[in-house]
Amino acid sequence: MSEITVTAAILVIGDEILSGRTKDKNIGYIADILNAAGIDLKEVRVVSDDEADIINALSALRTRYTYVFTTGGIGPTHDDITADCVAKAFNVELLENEQAMALLLERIKPEDMNKARRRMARIPVGASLIKNAISKAPGFQLENVIVMAGVPAVMQSMLDDVLPRLQTGVKMLSESIDATGLKEGGYAAALGEIQKSHQGIIIGSYPSLQPDGRFSNQIVVRSKDARALQAASDDIRKMVETMLK
Amino acid sequence: MSEITVTAAILVIGDEILSGRTKDKNIGYIADILNAAGIDLKEVRVVSDDEADIINALSALRTRYTYVFTTGGIGPTHDDITADCVAKAFNVELLENEQAMALLLERIKPEDMNKARRRMARIPVGASLIKNAISKAPGFQLENVIVMAGVPAVMQSMLDDVLPRLQTGVKMLSESIDATGLKEGGYAAALGEIQKSHQGIIIGSYPSLQPDGRFSNQIVVRSKDARALQAASDDIRKMVETMLK
Repeated sequence: MSEITVTAAILVIGDEILSGRTKDKNIGYIADILNAAGIDLKEVRVVSDDEADIINALSALRTRYTYVFTTGGIGPTHDDITADCVAKAFNVELLENEQAMALLLERIKPEDMNKARRRMARIPVGASLIKNAISKAPGFQLENVIVMAGVPAVMQSMLDDVLPRLQTGVKMLSESIDATGLKEGGYAAALGEIQKSHQGIIIGSYPSLQPDGRFSNQIVVRSKDARALQAASDDIRKMVETMLK
Repeated sequence: MSEITVTAAILVIGDEILSGRTKDKNIGYIADILNAAGIDLKEVRVVSDDEADIINALSALRTRYTYVFTTGGIGPTHDDITADCVAKAFNVELLENEQAMALLLERIKPEDMNKARRRMARIPVGASLIKNAISKAPGFQLENVIVMAGVPAVMQSMLDDVLPRLQTGVKMLSESIDATGLKEGGYAAALGEIQKSHQGIIIGSYPSLQPDGRFSNQIVVRSKDARALQAASDDIRKMVETMLK
């Protein structure tokens, strides 16, 4: 089976996540959207608002994956340094962008425009803008790095805008088989054998704790090949049915 | 001000987070606990159930931070490879541990003990066990790496057990100043000046979108020095009060 593989990483930028003050809601959202689009999310990193940390993470991720999605650090205050870091990572200038300024002026009155707000119009040279339907201040894409806001609604609006322009691959398909009533340790050996006979299919077993203190298990099968997925899922369903008897 | 700095990273191991199937609840929880204990969380990574990815992330993080907390991948099924990866990263043997086996037998009947369940008693040589009040199968600590389960309730139980044994530093203090009614772009310049005159204090401005479509902003000041924190907070409160007039 020939397939295009498009990969991605998320880089969450923000002291507020690491301090626990803000609970991240963007990782799970982006994961769902990318997965549905046929982009394989392979890694996530969360770093603080520190220039060296951001640049190091960007450099590591952008050379390894098709796309890097960043969230956070693109507002008007002194702690918003993402655009500066991206420009430095790519060794390009960060200049006030006319189109970005026009977008800002859709929401900000000319008399309220100041140096801090102009910061949000600074875009690395060579980047294309990503629209933000909520508060207008744009994100941007520079080569394979997609820079978005940290506020979930704004980030989601930016992801809607940029996604249709991205390369997508063959979509990962998945099937979930309910193994409630069985114990992981009871089916682990049989499931391991099924995994061995279905190479290349990703089989995971995920326990979760129920309110009654018992574990319930879901077995998830993932593949980009619908037939191979079906074959592995059938074997697992048979295994579960036999064991439940 | 002299202070002990104790740092940490979290390494979340699991395809289910990257696929979007499971929404991580451990990062925010661990961040809160570490912050309250005086351990500075500096970085988070999420990687898939891939041996090379796990070992590379472990090696990068454990040499950089005081502690690395891992979550996920310590169950009985074939996709649970965290213990194997930690042993490989430290180049030590992974052997069946008598004490871990005794803990497993508190929950598993001797006649139900099998090869898959015995996997959960395999502990890297030199590691100490971390107790799990929920399902008994232990986590472990090897040098500065703390290996915990992925199921939130189990992870939380393990964190309770291991935390009192860890080194802790001077606690990060924080103060949050409500800047609702002001716009970030309006106070950004003044806040930047306050940041400049309070070097070493961490000042962040965090917008969030309200149901009415407006942004409300919180300014958060963080420092390990209570007096310095107070001084910066006072300046910011004055700034906010003046601007709200």
